[in-house]
Amino acid sequence: MASKKLARGVALVGAGMSKFGAFKGKSSRDLFVEAFVEMLGSIDKPFDPKTIEALYVGNYSSDLFENQGHIAPIMASWVGLTPLPAVRVEDACASAGVALREGILAVASGLYDLVVVSGVEKMTDLATAKVTDTLATAADMQYEVTTGFTFPGFYAAMATAYMSAYGATPETFMKVGIKNHNNGAMNEKAQFGAKVSSIMKARQEKAAAKGLPIPEWDDELDFLHDDRANPNIAWPMRLYDCSPISDGAAVVLLASEELAAKLSDHPIYVAGLGQASDGALHDRETLTSIPSAKIAADKAYEMAGIGPQAINFAEVHDCFTIAEIIATEDLGFFEKGAGWKAAEAGETSREGSKPINLSGGLKSKGHPVGASGVGQVVEVWKQLRGEAGERQLNGDLQYGLTHNVGGTGQTCVVHIFERKN
Amino acid sequence: MASKKLARGVALVGAGMSKFGAFKGKSSRDLFVEAFVEMLGSIDKPFDPKTIEALYVGNYSSDLFENQGHIAPIMASWVGLTPLPAVRVEDACASAGVALREGILAVASGLYDLVVVSGVEKMTDLATAKVTDTLATAADMQYEVTTGFTFPGFYAAMATAYMSAYGATPETFMKVGIKNHNNGAMNEKAQFGAKVSSIMKARQEKAAAKGLPIPEWDDELDFLHDDRANPNIAWPMRLYDCSPISDGAAVVLLASEELAAKLSDHPIYVAGLGQASDGALHDRETLTSIPSAKIAADKAYEMAGIGPQAINFAEVHDCFTIAEIIATEDLGFFEKGAGWKAAEAGETSREGSKPINLSGGLKSKGHPVGASGVGQVVEVWKQLRGEAGERQLNGDLQYGLTHNVGGTGQTCVVHIFERKN
Repeated sequence: MASKKLARGVALVGAGMSKFGAFKGKSSRDLFVEAFVEMLGSIDKPFDPKTIEALYVGNYSSDLFENQGHIAPIMASWVGLTPLPAVRVEDACASAGVALREGILAVASGLYDLVVVSGVEKMTDLATAKVTDTLATAADMQYEVTTGFTFPGFYAAMATAYMSAYGATPETFMKVGIKNHNNGAMNEKAQFGAKVSSIMKARQEKAAAKGLPIPEWDDELDFLHDDRANPNIAWPMRLYDCSPISDGAAVVLLASEELAAKLSDHPIYVAGLGQASDGALHDRETLTSIPSAKIAADKAYEMAGIGPQAINFAEVHDCFTIAEIIATEDLGFFEKGAGWKAAEAGETSREGSKPINLSGGLKSKGHPVGASGVGQVVEVWKQLRGEAGERQLNGDLQYGLTHNVGGTGQTCVVHIFERKN
Repeated sequence: MASKKLARGVALVGAGMSKFGAFKGKSSRDLFVEAFVEMLGSIDKPFDPKTIEALYVGNYSSDLFENQGHIAPIMASWVGLTPLPAVRVEDACASAGVALREGILAVASGLYDLVVVSGVEKMTDLATAKVTDTLATAADMQYEVTTGFTFPGFYAAMATAYMSAYGATPETFMKVGIKNHNNGAMNEKAQFGAKVSSIMKARQEKAAAKGLPIPEWDDELDFLHDDRANPNIAWPMRLYDCSPISDGAAVVLLASEELAAKLSDHPIYVAGLGQASDGALHDRETLTSIPSAKIAADKAYEMAGIGPQAINFAEVHDCFTIAEIIATEDLGFFEKGAGWKAAEAGETSREGSKPINLSGGLKSKGHPVGASGVGQVVEVWKQLRGEAGERQLNGDLQYGLTHNVGGTGQTCVVHIFERKN
């Protein structure tokens, strides 16, 4: 079928997020309010919140995490958006990216000119083991989880297959984690706002202060090879290869193209979007690629009329470090099997040819699962507008991409954003 | 803000549903397949399922009911729709109605010409008490449920307020239940396919066969006044005032207006839609009306360019009998406070001026919560196309309306459908 266009253009005119982290005593609604208020403050021109027309909420499972269903109208009421239509969208860890897509379609449909899209998740009220169980429900409970798989295991299987096929090593993955921690250290909203080297030094200083033997680590990689400092979760995925359990919310404001120019000095336009689904992991022909990501990316590139080479930077779904490497291949940034070499060569660092996860990614910024997809968009908004502060990428930035995955790719959604002025 | 129009028209070109009921051994995916296959068989012209472009799934809480999140891509894979975009939409018991709305907006946006919208819920794997707890999570867990409220209590509070304000009696509600059971007795898909009078007689015959004393009930109302036959759940809501716990799925196929004419001899057009949200019940000024229903209905009427008098029949959200009476007022069919008199006078029966819930409604047809909104649309599709068999309404039918509520009206979504040829 021929490529299709949206009936009209859509742009971002505001974006904000709560701090990501573990916040005792803060519920989804508190985090949502924090993000919403920051979003309001990001709009260039005077703005009346009463002109907002609808709310989308990405959320994976407030049902299981907070024993609260039907959260969209609650979020609406906590920021004064009642009685606007309030819709929760769920596609596991891609919930917020898919909610964004629904918001874009709602504006393109002609029904609305101004729509709020958000993602929110409060995960830390549950015990850690229970969180892993809850996340596992994003896989196929009948066929996958009953065999003993949870998500660290799924991605570990992909990592071993990838190492076997292309020659990457566990150290490759560690380098991705170090890079994302380096980026996150410049992000005041990140859950882990510290470089791995800083964490290493802090542990040495703590040992010294307590009069304990000071661990002798030569450098970050030496630290990450230490089984006590960086234990295996599911080999070859160690602690520093896994994104954390997080609380957080992120909010963006979408406007029709006509309205965007009135509300914003530098609207960020939606240039392309794509989404695809897949079956369970064991049904696939390969473990070293996520087919839904390729399909989603192709659709997004086609709509935007550009290829991967035009993308200046991307926020990709690094729930595990292996996922980032595979993503950079599925998105066409590097050839199949070459993503790990590019990562090792620093091509995905902020100084490289294709900076990935300038925000710190899910690994360092945190991964409140149903919020992450919109959290990625907040970073793209800031970078394209030159408002990323200390971590601002240099140069003329035109295109930023977000890549948000649910499960092991049962859902993938890709968006391409463009700055035009 | 001025009324808005969709960028292009959207129509139903197919509809199907599983039987509603309690089905041991059938999961969401089984029910979904059943409904999907019936939908395919309902399309007038030769049809290739490979032309479908996206899937929307309304579902309240497979998370809590089946311990399965991320169900949209699973449903896609079970009917061969992988790798199409698959999106779950949740707004409690309005999940499917809201999913329909998202599907409509997706087609109107220009991105798709052909979209499947569904609703599915598998509730009976849990113990009944646990189902009530799970449903309660659709209210505000922090402020409402901790005080002891569950949904029978909420609607009982609305019923007592309504009786006090307008003079209705518990017998009024019983008459709504009798009417819906009469309708459902003609619906082969209904969970309770029997009139109350038939149930009464069956119980008398059973007693006789066992040699037990035969209960002496004069008529249906006498039966419903019997505390043993029809126990109080939350006064004045008795057993026969409450919709059941159900399993079921429903599926419709949406097409752009241009494509609809090619696929269907009698497409059913989306004439109007509206949705609204609200805060918790205790925050409202009234218990005898659901404000979000009024707002949603007004939007839908405005878009359709008609008023309530033009609606030939409606499927409304009778999760409890009181809800149906209030709905007929909120939708403008009867004056405020006059709905109960209209119900008692038979105006909402199939012979009346405004037939309500010809399918049997949630009360008799069953209420698989996240599927009900699309289940209502299946009935409208059949009635407007003259395919409702024994329960087909006579006369020239042009407009049918669906009214789908989440919680106590924290969400309400209304759709108006039109037959043009």
